[in-house]
Amino acid sequence: MALIVHKYGGTSMGSTERIRNVAKRVAKWARAGYQMVVVPSAMSGETNRLLGLAKELAPARVMPAYQRELDMLAATGEQASSALLAIALQAEGVDAVSYAGWQVPIRTDSAFTKARIESIDDQRVRADLAAGKVVIITGFQGIDSEGNVTTLGRGGSDTSAVAVAAALKADECLIYTDVDGVYTTDPRVVPEARRLRSISFEEMLEMASLGSKVLQIRSVEFAGKYKVPIRVLSSFTPWDIPIEEEARSGTLITFEEDENMEQALVSGIAFNRDEAKISVLGVPDKPGIAYQILGAVADANIEVDMIIQNVSKDGKTDFSFTVHRNDYARTVDLLKEKVLPKLGAEAVIGDTKICKVSIVGIGMRSHVGVASKMFRTLSEEGINIQMISTSEIKTSVVIDEKYMELAVRALHRAFDLDQEPAAA
Amino acid sequence: MALIVHKYGGTSMGSTERIRNVAKRVAKWARAGYQMVVVPSAMSGETNRLLGLAKELAPARVMPAYQRELDMLAATGEQASSALLAIALQAEGVDAVSYAGWQVPIRTDSAFTKARIESIDDQRVRADLAAGKVVIITGFQGIDSEGNVTTLGRGGSDTSAVAVAAALKADECLIYTDVDGVYTTDPRVVPEARRLRSISFEEMLEMASLGSKVLQIRSVEFAGKYKVPIRVLSSFTPWDIPIEEEARSGTLITFEEDENMEQALVSGIAFNRDEAKISVLGVPDKPGIAYQILGAVADANIEVDMIIQNVSKDGKTDFSFTVHRNDYARTVDLLKEKVLPKLGAEAVIGDTKICKVSIVGIGMRSHVGVASKMFRTLSEEGINIQMISTSEIKTSVVIDEKYMELAVRALHRAFDLDQEPAAA
Repeated sequence: MALIVHKYGGTSMGSTERIRNVAKRVAKWARAGYQMVVVPSAMSGETNRLLGLAKELAPARVMPAYQRELDMLAATGEQASSALLAIALQAEGVDAVSYAGWQVPIRTDSAFTKARIESIDDQRVRADLAAGKVVIITGFQGIDSEGNVTTLGRGGSDTSAVAVAAALKADECLIYTDVDGVYTTDPRVVPEARRLRSISFEEMLEMASLGSKVLQIRSVEFAGKYKVPIRVLSSFTPWDIPIEEEARSGTLITFEEDENMEQALVSGIAFNRDEAKISVLGVPDKPGIAYQILGAVADANIEVDMIIQNVSKDGKTDFSFTVHRNDYARTVDLLKEKVLPKLGAEAVIGDTKICKVSIVGIGMRSHVGVASKMFRTLSEEGINIQMISTSEIKTSVVIDEKYMELAVRALHRAFDLDQEPAAA
Repeated sequence: MALIVHKYGGTSMGSTERIRNVAKRVAKWARAGYQMVVVPSAMSGETNRLLGLAKELAPARVMPAYQRELDMLAATGEQASSALLAIALQAEGVDAVSYAGWQVPIRTDSAFTKARIESIDDQRVRADLAAGKVVIITGFQGIDSEGNVTTLGRGGSDTSAVAVAAALKADECLIYTDVDGVYTTDPRVVPEARRLRSISFEEMLEMASLGSKVLQIRSVEFAGKYKVPIRVLSSFTPWDIPIEEEARSGTLITFEEDENMEQALVSGIAFNRDEAKISVLGVPDKPGIAYQILGAVADANIEVDMIIQNVSKDGKTDFSFTVHRNDYARTVDLLKEKVLPKLGAEAVIGDTKICKVSIVGIGMRSHVGVASKMFRTLSEEGINIQMISTSEIKTSVVIDEKYMELAVRALHRAFDLDQEPAAA
């Protein structure tokens, strides 16, 4: 019989009443004969409550010893919710057992508060599944080689669920969340936005990294690496809808380009206005300038997103990139003080009132003209493009932030995203 | 340098403000050069909150699988408070690390919700102490041979602290609590009750088992078995009182009868009115009657305290014992239905309006007349004694509960407990 992993977020686990509903849903699947593994988050608000207490006591200097304790503290939230779910399942008459990350064990590196999973031992879980038990595994946490508790960082329960599904070679990993799937774009901006029945993991990866908040990006990377089919679906449907219906709902994130996949050129439109652009103008065009500029930025622990260098003219070039808006002032100061004099560049300019809009679609790989259609659409709306960056399945532009909604709506229409595509 | 274990109860850990005070106190000891291990309880109210959630979800039938999950759940309370204390110590500039029971590990049997400690590995803790760290170990919990989390039952943190002190051969285990020591009797009943500077662990064992709630009885048993000196002291003294003063405060529970020990005949008076007495009258005096009566009671999982059988007369005897008041009706019914007919006894009678008053003192071992002084004192007050039971260092009587305060006050005065005894 198929092995299924369910993941429930903090909202779904937010009260005993909701935990009881989760238990009823899981019990339904277990009674239908599926081998069930469940990965719950902490009850909503609990992680914030715990970290709030820590903050009141925090040492002035953040040190690894402090971060180790933060993980000890935060990990209790999922341990408690997992035990409660096991109890709720037992109350439904279903044999269930909960394991903390260290009990499975889920082995991670020692990067406290943002650890990465290295391996998962499936022996104990398989034995329980074979004995007919539902196995509950705490999300968000693991154990390092020294026996310390680690956590995976915010949203890490998605990654836990996918990693567990990969280790167990699960048939599908169902991520229950407060949205009912992945949309062509944010329905708050485009009311015609349509839920996708399926999306390739590469597209999902781009959508996630571009600011679509449905899934934590690392969980998508994990799913791609281990070829775990993920389904994102709503935890607000009644628990007793027929399994066949539930199993087809939401959005399937698949690693196979099978025949049933939607064959649209563009699957979705992502956008965000968290970024700011910075340009270093009149840079002498010689080897090493990218490193001299971005090395200094990276050393200051500032993350860079888009990077653009144009061809040079008269031995000089302009170098542009985007950073998070919160890092904008710090980055400009850094460049002016440390980089500009050494580099002999002319000026550093920037703008925080920008946004990035991206079209994403695996169809771009094999179809020319997708990017040019995007540019034409924006031009017809009178929107000036400030920067362009492309990858194999994505084209991103930076525009004035005041045009964001206009651009997203025009592109959504231009690529017919409001209409169900014909199967190939 | 001396190795000291501190234990702090839930009230002492009840808020970030209080945790900060605990950290300051521990830091004071660490800075004075002591090797420090700290065992905290969960923040007050937390264990009840968690078990309350479990109760809302609980299965109808209590099964080991359910109790396993209760332990997973409840153990999170101490893990969180321990991490918070480590953080508070780091904020004080003291290097600190917290370990859950399974990390030490503290190995227990698999009796979920009331596990017993089997062994404690001291390697990891010793390495940290050698490195100058304060080590915080979660109270109340351990790990069984299957890798499941277990808890020691209510008040188990006392036992954890003493067990850790025993495993590390600590010089002293300081139990910080909301009373400032062990008293000759309950000061709410006898205002002249006096704090004892020291008490032998055997006396403490009797006091604890007789209803003095200062320490969990199992922690006292542990202390006696491994000869760990325990000091009970107040967590409400200012954290910055001089260490020499703090180290002499409270009550020392010692396993040595050294010269400095108080040499009173009687150290304290314990009492409780939780019991009820039951008598089976006119029992044929032949082998096996005690087993026939108490075997049936034990099979019904009812705990028996005092047991008294008098010499027989005309081939018949009366058999009396006490049980918890909550078990009274059930026990009487059981005896009438199942035991009386088989035994051929005449009647089962009982009384719930009784109380037990006990004098406890290691001095009784070598001094005759202590018990008779007790009986005389009660007689002078016109108090009728219903049952008597004695052990090597204790004499207990059952009397009408309305005379309880009168009896305790009279005995306290008769044995000069309001006065500091002369050192031997």
